[in-house]
Amino acid sequence: MAINTENVSVEISKTSKIDSVDFSNLNFGREFTDHMFVCDFVDGEWQTPKVMPYQAMSYEPSARVFHYGQAVFEGMKAYKDDNGKVFLFRPKQNFDRINKSAQRLAMPAFPENYFFEGLETLLKLDNEWIKPGMGNSLYLRPFIIATEPAISASPANTYRFMIICSPAKAYYNAPVRVLVAEEYSRSADGGVGFAKAAGNYAAQFYPTSLAQEKGFQQVIWTDASTHTYLEEAGTMNVFFRINDTLITAPTSDRILDGVTRKSIVQLAEDLGIKCEVRKIKVDEIKTAAKDGSLKEIFGAGTAAVISPISAFEHKNELFDIPVSEDSYAKLFKQTLLNIQHNVSEDKHGWRYEVK
Amino acid sequence: MAINTENVSVEISKTSKIDSVDFSNLNFGREFTDHMFVCDFVDGEWQTPKVMPYQAMSYEPSARVFHYGQAVFEGMKAYKDDNGKVFLFRPKQNFDRINKSAQRLAMPAFPENYFFEGLETLLKLDNEWIKPGMGNSLYLRPFIIATEPAISASPANTYRFMIICSPAKAYYNAPVRVLVAEEYSRSADGGVGFAKAAGNYAAQFYPTSLAQEKGFQQVIWTDASTHTYLEEAGTMNVFFRINDTLITAPTSDRILDGVTRKSIVQLAEDLGIKCEVRKIKVDEIKTAAKDGSLKEIFGAGTAAVISPISAFEHKNELFDIPVSEDSYAKLFKQTLLNIQHNVSEDKHGWRYEVK
Repeated sequence: MAINTENVSVEISKTSKIDSVDFSNLNFGREFTDHMFVCDFVDGEWQTPKVMPYQAMSYEPSARVFHYGQAVFEGMKAYKDDNGKVFLFRPKQNFDRINKSAQRLAMPAFPENYFFEGLETLLKLDNEWIKPGMGNSLYLRPFIIATEPAISASPANTYRFMIICSPAKAYYNAPVRVLVAEEYSRSADGGVGFAKAAGNYAAQFYPTSLAQEKGFQQVIWTDASTHTYLEEAGTMNVFFRINDTLITAPTSDRILDGVTRKSIVQLAEDLGIKCEVRKIKVDEIKTAAKDGSLKEIFGAGTAAVISPISAFEHKNELFDIPVSEDSYAKLFKQTLLNIQHNVSEDKHGWRYEVK
Repeated sequence: MAINTENVSVEISKTSKIDSVDFSNLNFGREFTDHMFVCDFVDGEWQTPKVMPYQAMSYEPSARVFHYGQAVFEGMKAYKDDNGKVFLFRPKQNFDRINKSAQRLAMPAFPENYFFEGLETLLKLDNEWIKPGMGNSLYLRPFIIATEPAISASPANTYRFMIICSPAKAYYNAPVRVLVAEEYSRSADGGVGFAKAAGNYAAQFYPTSLAQEKGFQQVIWTDASTHTYLEEAGTMNVFFRINDTLITAPTSDRILDGVTRKSIVQLAEDLGIKCEVRKIKVDEIKTAAKDGSLKEIFGAGTAAVISPISAFEHKNELFDIPVSEDSYAKLFKQTLLNIQHNVSEDKHGWRYEVK
């Protein structure tokens, strides 16, 4: 692979941490590769992007990100096939979405050529960190933070765009149990729920920790106004299977337009599985759980991939969902992984080879 | 003033920036004093607090605050009277509230003795930065950020509490024009609107910038479900005067429990002004504006102090409100400033002298 340094300044790390990492025993998001991508927005312009050794950087205590949460991010993965070729999965979707998130938080759009050249340069330098084999990937975290050292409550004039990379397995390695939200909310109509805005995540930590005390790993959020409609799980969109029909909530200004979610909707069509994108009442799912027509629930997201949900609780009623060997979750996961790892045909052009 | 270093480690700055600051021409939140207060949470405990020279600090790119907005803050002010005595205004309210905000964001509570000893040590060292005279103050910004270098979407294990100080005049120096929100929202029922959570602020920047393009400085937020009730202005709580009655929205999980707000409610009682704390429909205020019974609108907050509102727009109807010399806004502002600057009696014990 050639390093294209037309637009990107490159400083190669003198040492590598790779030998200190146990790739068979990864803790999500704790180990980072040898390099990172950094680009600053100053005087109304994104400056020359840099790929440099991964390192801590210095920030003023008044940097706006610390005070007003003006920060957005993306989650992507790079995969390696058995011939050592490296692929991204629908990266344009992530590029478009980080700029959509940025716009909602009054941050400047990041240029497409910088995004792809920076990302590809980084992946070439840290190529050894991408391990082949199903389920292995390099998790990529682009993010933008407001760096201006001034605490007036208004959009910053300076920003930093970065990409850091962390070798990863799937986020959840066993079926998860979820609590359906009755009191707490993730987002409001007219708010920032559709954006990957930093503050959306911290807001979920406390209600999620309450759920965890009750033995659930995650919360499925409901609409803030009535708590009667199922929305998303914060780190995943959610799919319900009633008999042989798949159902997922429509995206809105409260619900993230997940790349895995939209890929599953397409794959369902390809596989001849009926998939309804519509509002789903909590009561509909409870009734289906009671009469046995609820066959599956699963979450879908870049970090989580596809994560079967084995139980949900709502208003102190607990419903166990048998996780079957013959599940849609398993079928979609395998279909997606086969595309991502260059094992199967890519009829929609979702693979993006890093050459 | 004696420096109490029982619990606080102190490193005094060798130089001072104070002579470079034009105190008659301050831009809010851009100049900071010579020292700052820093205390780290590590291994389940807040470590020895430090007062040290104001400086940039180093953070890993994976520090959780950059990704998930796990950050809360407070706004307070220190005042100096003509005899050089330094006062805080109801600081226990801010201390209690930062811990309430922290709890909602799954962050550890900060100890009361560290908060007050740190703050007082800082104010003693930077005493010269607090200028006497009505309208002058030193704005104090306590904040807590998640520092753990790991991007799993869960509460951090390490945090940093800081206080930085910025000499200030009032945030708005002229009456402001506001747009009443019809589409965008600030917070959801069951969300974090009541907390001074970092992400609440970034979420307002874009809708506020749209309002600014139309000639309004601020947005008055309405309830996310129906957009029919008036809530708060994001940097201020809001009061409406219909004839001689003052009305303000009740606090809730969407609305910040402002210290200035609750002080005004008390002062109204002291001054024999009728003050109703109840839900307020946008339509009620529009009707009152049309029939002439709407006499005033003003915002109230620590940074803004009391800020008269001279116009509001809703559904393309613009209402000008004459700002009179004989206003409640002026009366409350003077009454508050007199208490804060040790000019008048302090019957509720709101002043806190830094000795």
